[in-house]
Amino acid sequence: MKPLGPIPPGFVSRDGELVIGGGKVSDLVAEAGGTPLFVYARDRIATRLSHLRAAMPARVGINYAIKANPFEPLLSYMRGQVDGFDIASGGELQLVERIGIDPAKVSFAGPGKRDDELEAALVAGVTLNCESEGEAARTLAIAERIGRTPRMAVRVNPDFELKGSGMKMGGGAKPFGVDAERVPALVRSIIEGRAEWRGFHIFTGSQALSADAIIDAQANVLDLAARLSDEVGIPLPKLNMGGGFGIPYFPGDSPLDIAAVGEALHGRLADLPASLARTDLCLELGRYLVGEAGVYLTRVIDRKESNGVTYLVTDGGLHHQLAASGNFGTVVRRNYPVAIASRFAAEPAEEVNVVGCLCTPLDRLADAAELPYADVGDLVAVFCAGAYGASASPASFLGQGPAREMLV
Amino acid sequence: MKPLGPIPPGFVSRDGELVIGGGKVSDLVAEAGGTPLFVYARDRIATRLSHLRAAMPARVGINYAIKANPFEPLLSYMRGQVDGFDIASGGELQLVERIGIDPAKVSFAGPGKRDDELEAALVAGVTLNCESEGEAARTLAIAERIGRTPRMAVRVNPDFELKGSGMKMGGGAKPFGVDAERVPALVRSIIEGRAEWRGFHIFTGSQALSADAIIDAQANVLDLAARLSDEVGIPLPKLNMGGGFGIPYFPGDSPLDIAAVGEALHGRLADLPASLARTDLCLELGRYLVGEAGVYLTRVIDRKESNGVTYLVTDGGLHHQLAASGNFGTVVRRNYPVAIASRFAAEPAEEVNVVGCLCTPLDRLADAAELPYADVGDLVAVFCAGAYGASASPASFLGQGPAREMLV
Repeated sequence: MKPLGPIPPGFVSRDGELVIGGGKVSDLVAEAGGTPLFVYARDRIATRLSHLRAAMPARVGINYAIKANPFEPLLSYMRGQVDGFDIASGGELQLVERIGIDPAKVSFAGPGKRDDELEAALVAGVTLNCESEGEAARTLAIAERIGRTPRMAVRVNPDFELKGSGMKMGGGAKPFGVDAERVPALVRSIIEGRAEWRGFHIFTGSQALSADAIIDAQANVLDLAARLSDEVGIPLPKLNMGGGFGIPYFPGDSPLDIAAVGEALHGRLADLPASLARTDLCLELGRYLVGEAGVYLTRVIDRKESNGVTYLVTDGGLHHQLAASGNFGTVVRRNYPVAIASRFAAEPAEEVNVVGCLCTPLDRLADAAELPYADVGDLVAVFCAGAYGASASPASFLGQGPAREMLV
Repeated sequence: MKPLGPIPPGFVSRDGELVIGGGKVSDLVAEAGGTPLFVYARDRIATRLSHLRAAMPARVGINYAIKANPFEPLLSYMRGQVDGFDIASGGELQLVERIGIDPAKVSFAGPGKRDDELEAALVAGVTLNCESEGEAARTLAIAERIGRTPRMAVRVNPDFELKGSGMKMGGGAKPFGVDAERVPALVRSIIEGRAEWRGFHIFTGSQALSADAIIDAQANVLDLAARLSDEVGIPLPKLNMGGGFGIPYFPGDSPLDIAAVGEALHGRLADLPASLARTDLCLELGRYLVGEAGVYLTRVIDRKESNGVTYLVTDGGLHHQLAASGNFGTVVRRNYPVAIASRFAAEPAEEVNVVGCLCTPLDRLADAAELPYADVGDLVAVFCAGAYGASASPASFLGQGPAREMLV
């Protein structure tokens, strides 16, 4: 038996079925037209945001990192919920333009921005987080050619990391941003290049569950931003402090204590140096805002035995849930939170392996899991599917195609 | 410094550039309209097939497993090159129908076939490789409802594995196929259900480079097929012996000795039991046929330093080359064969990290690689990109979209 990850709190059953955003899973699947299906619940996003805003200082804006979930109805919903958006490609720029998001609220980071992406961003008027001296020079040259004033920030490669984070984005050599010691010179050249100076982007890591680690990282980010601003010699207009707020995926994971993070941040903001006194501050969050709001629903197609092991074969799989299958940035596979959605009120009754429909041993959704009895036709739920699911999986693998998605 | 995987033999330069299928990379990119670009070379596929046919007994057919690379022009080309096709989904069925491949040459395997996929396969007349008793019952019921005679084979979960294979598909409990001891009863029920009996599919593993391991597995497959046929009591019409032929990806990998595999197979076929004397035999190969025929080309967008490390940031990445990034079925990341395609004749001059354009530390194409000096505008080649590349990667991640593809 292998344990399952923790189901996010607050999910209940009705008529024995899992309820998402007020709807029973059988009704949601019928409404969507079938499985596999991602369901994203507005109420969970709203609750998450209200708790977050209550914990954090009012001065700190909350940005949404679109890469976590670019589903258009969700993005339209987020427009009314957050203070800014972070994009990572020309494709995401087109998305925010289509949704009608104010470009003044959008910043664009990414280590490999092509010239055509820079030009589109300049035309749109979004802030470009420069990742290198070379990119800054290209940006200024394109801006001059097309007669635009670029809005430019600098992404700083910090000389510290977010401890315990799932992915480290700072500390040591990195392809992201500019090493701190070269930042003041770059900022001066940007200002001399007649760009609108928009400040710093400092991203230290992602998916951290330790409040202490985030508190330390935020303190270091504020110190670094102040030190670099002092070297530049002008107050900092804006600081994207990064994100890093994690969600529990795996057995033993505990939720991040945002009250502790907020309290520490209140303390830091009460005592900021002059160069940051009037700085616009924001957090950039993706997974933390939407990850637990999403559930992936897939239907059992076959129930079979092999050498004493029971398999539930579903119509979903790693082509929609690469991370849950254990094949994305994971060394040792562990189970995500998984349940029999159509028998959500039932007690565990047997040990089964839940697999996807792909013809590869990589396609696993739950290994040796203790679950209620399920048979052909039952629905399986994979929780924590709201971020880095549909868009971060190889949807066309084995000719399958994308899953359905709905916002409820 | 970390070594690079071995570049497949036979790639040459012209005017200092890598040549693929007779074309210089700069010309190919211009013709395709830009990067990132997958180029698949017909001549390499043809050479691979002619060597393979020369080594293998004439009696053994060569099937192509579409999942390895479903690019339509490549698939159309394969139609004239191989003896059969293996599909893994209703989507791949639509593809072979669109290309006009004879359904009598097509078999459909996959542990999670939905009812609508079974029905489409029955209407098309392809052979269904049954993966369980439940699936066989569903197939017979649908066939009866729509008035078709199903062509049915049984996928056997063998009680042995392909040793040293990248992915084990046999030995112990598996979601694929039916455990050998239950196969005779299932075959009898299929024949009694008035299906056209099409034989066995026995797949033991994939990506093996040891001839001895493949020779052993093939011997075991033939023994198992004979034993099961004897139990069923009728000669076996067809046997898909699986594949498993690997290609070298990583430093230290050596090519599979197909002469040795062919010689052993010649010996076995000279001495087959009566139940296999007239059996149609085939190998199911995907990666081995097309993997080394493909090259992924991506352009350097930025050259940057961070803490003494040089990064070449490209416009490609894991959204097209998930396996090369080390994030698909890999525990320890190793370098694929990578070269500076626009300076293919140049000597190594420096140690660099080649990364993709995505804003994640997972997006790596070559770590600490010794390569010729390259700058913005140069083209990087990732070799062994012909199989499980474009279709097995999360193309829409971070709003990027698919790469260009061309057959030359």
